Amino acid sequence: MVSTNRYYLADRPDGVPDDDTFDLRTVELGDPGPGEVLVKIRYLSVDPYMRGRMDAGESYAEPWEVDEPLQGGGVGEVVNETGTEFEAGDTVVGNMSWSEYHLADADGLQRIETGALPVSTALGVLGMPGRTAYFGTREVLEPRAGDTVVVSAAAGAVGSVVGQLAKLQGARVVGFAGSDEKCEVVEEEFGFDACINYKTTDDYVEALAEAAPEGVDGYFDNVGGPITDAVFAHLNVDARVAVCGQIALYNAEETPTGPRKLGKLIETRARVQGLLVGDFAPRFEQATADLAEWVAAGDIEYRESVVEGIENAPDAFLGLFEGENIGKQVVKVE
Amino acid sequence: MVSTNRYYLADRPDGVPDDDTFDLRTVELGDPGPGEVLVKIRYLSVDPYMRGRMDAGESYAEPWEVDEPLQGGGVGEVVNETGTEFEAGDTVVGNMSWSEYHLADADGLQRIETGALPVSTALGVLGMPGRTAYFGTREVLEPRAGDTVVVSAAAGAVGSVVGQLAKLQGARVVGFAGSDEKCEVVEEEFGFDACINYKTTDDYVEALAEAAPEGVDGYFDNVGGPITDAVFAHLNVDARVAVCGQIALYNAEETPTGPRKLGKLIETRARVQGLLVGDFAPRFEQATADLAEWVAAGDIEYRESVVEGIENAPDAFLGLFEGENIGKQVVKVE
Repeated sequence: MVSTNRYYLADRPDGVPDDDTFDLRTVELGDPGPGEVLVKIRYLSVDPYMRGRMDAGESYAEPWEVDEPLQGGGVGEVVNETGTEFEAGDTVVGNMSWSEYHLADADGLQRIETGALPVSTALGVLGMPGRTAYFGTREVLEPRAGDTVVVSAAAGAVGSVVGQLAKLQGARVVGFAGSDEKCEVVEEEFGFDACINYKTTDDYVEALAEAAPEGVDGYFDNVGGPITDAVFAHLNVDARVAVCGQIALYNAEETPTGPRKLGKLIETRARVQGLLVGDFAPRFEQATADLAEWVAAGDIEYRESVVEGIENAPDAFLGLFEGENIGKQVVKVE
Repeated sequence: MVSTNRYYLADRPDGVPDDDTFDLRTVELGDPGPGEVLVKIRYLSVDPYMRGRMDAGESYAEPWEVDEPLQGGGVGEVVNETGTEFEAGDTVVGNMSWSEYHLADADGLQRIETGALPVSTALGVLGMPGRTAYFGTREVLEPRAGDTVVVSAAAGAVGSVVGQLAKLQGARVVGFAGSDEKCEVVEEEFGFDACINYKTTDDYVEALAEAAPEGVDGYFDNVGGPITDAVFAHLNVDARVAVCGQIALYNAEETPTGPRKLGKLIETRARVQGLLVGDFAPRFEQATADLAEWVAAGDIEYRESVVEGIENAPDAFLGLFEGENIGKQVVKVE
């Protein structure tokens, strides 16, 4: 039996979480059952995505219930002899409650191998944030030599690694961060080519025009909101946007700015890709032949709306916005 | 010499174009020069994308200048013997001004081959809209048997074809259209499984829950705005969203609803794809090994912010939203 302080979700927040959200309770943990490991926690991770778990609605992580302990990544030491693969004194990482001690399923723990690095790196550069940067950069951002890559929350656990990985690929890397001190670290320590302090900059679009004069080929978005608005304005053709976080919006009750709903893309890993038919010009002929065949076979039906007279062309055009047409709207001139 | 009426851009519209936008003038066309063809126009196409050309800002089509003739796809007959590959009487399609006669570069014209179909189909199902549907469906939407596909502007030139192509692949297809009449056509003629009349429906999210109970695997977006909002709420994992048009927004001075800036994706064909690190779980080990190596080699710098004490975990968490951390924020419990 061990006693621990542990945080519970006291109430779901409206907007920014506050005192009413969190409830610290002292609880007694029972003895570990079969397959369970008692962990004395050393480090807990707090992450933006947790805000989503406080809401009732579905997110990419399951919502917490009110009166449920808050949870997240943690590092600690195994206390007891367990009859599992873990021994007392092992340092482990896994999902822990926000508490001093945690009874964990052995299945969910990994022994930490951080070598000469402090064990807390298992929650950072070697852990979830580092891996997020690693895969996000390789699989979505795909920076190439000569690219310009923008990273929001550039001083953060994920962004700082993303920018460096992009640099290793030969990209020019521009960060957004929230203080001059951060920007100095971003530039001097993380090696970004430029950093925009978004708290002292009025016009992000203009600032980016200077910092990324050749446009943006890759954007690693951790924040959403007006920064993302500004980056979108500079996207180059075939740009890759990795939507990794939307922290600017997690507390928002409404979303006043920025491309909205991108959080949904995290949830679904949907890709959103613009379509411009001209890209496929070399294959127009085949398309027309196929379509003609399908129409002839009755597989494709079509409609046209015809407006008569050149003088009515503006009406025909405006009618599109009123939804007056069915199928293709044309103007019959003669 | 031939005289023709022709529409000019009189002024750039604010919001919805009106009478002040269009100016009909009577002009004399000179004789065709070398490589030019005089075309007596039969059909002109008007398309939503043209709204973009009326604005000064860059779009995926070049902006029109004020006092420039309005232009678009047209079908007509060659009037003169030209010394080009075209002969008088040929029916051609190409870019025409909004006029009765047009002097066209022969290079930009194609002889029409619509077979038994009316020549106007060269502007519709066999033309740009049909091809847009064809490539958009094949290359972006990629409908699969058993998928649910949603199409906005389902009664339109593009949407009607998209829905049918998706049906041919075995998808369940749900359309949005703006009248009961349209919905009847969409269901009965184009064979969609369901159609939502967005003008008589209050709650699109609820309507979709009924029409697409298994969620949305593919969304072909022609409109943007609140319909797109609602579809986003139903996206399934690995959904494909083809952003083809944003007609609901083209006249908007501000964009009050819907995912915004998606028009930019059309311009750039950027893909926006959510990222969830858990997708890459089988490769975590390699990632950690690589990261450790890079950190050891000094290729990757990292920072951590440490808050001490379990009691400060909420502050550490809230601090994320205030940007108080540099690098990975952790709570040091002991």
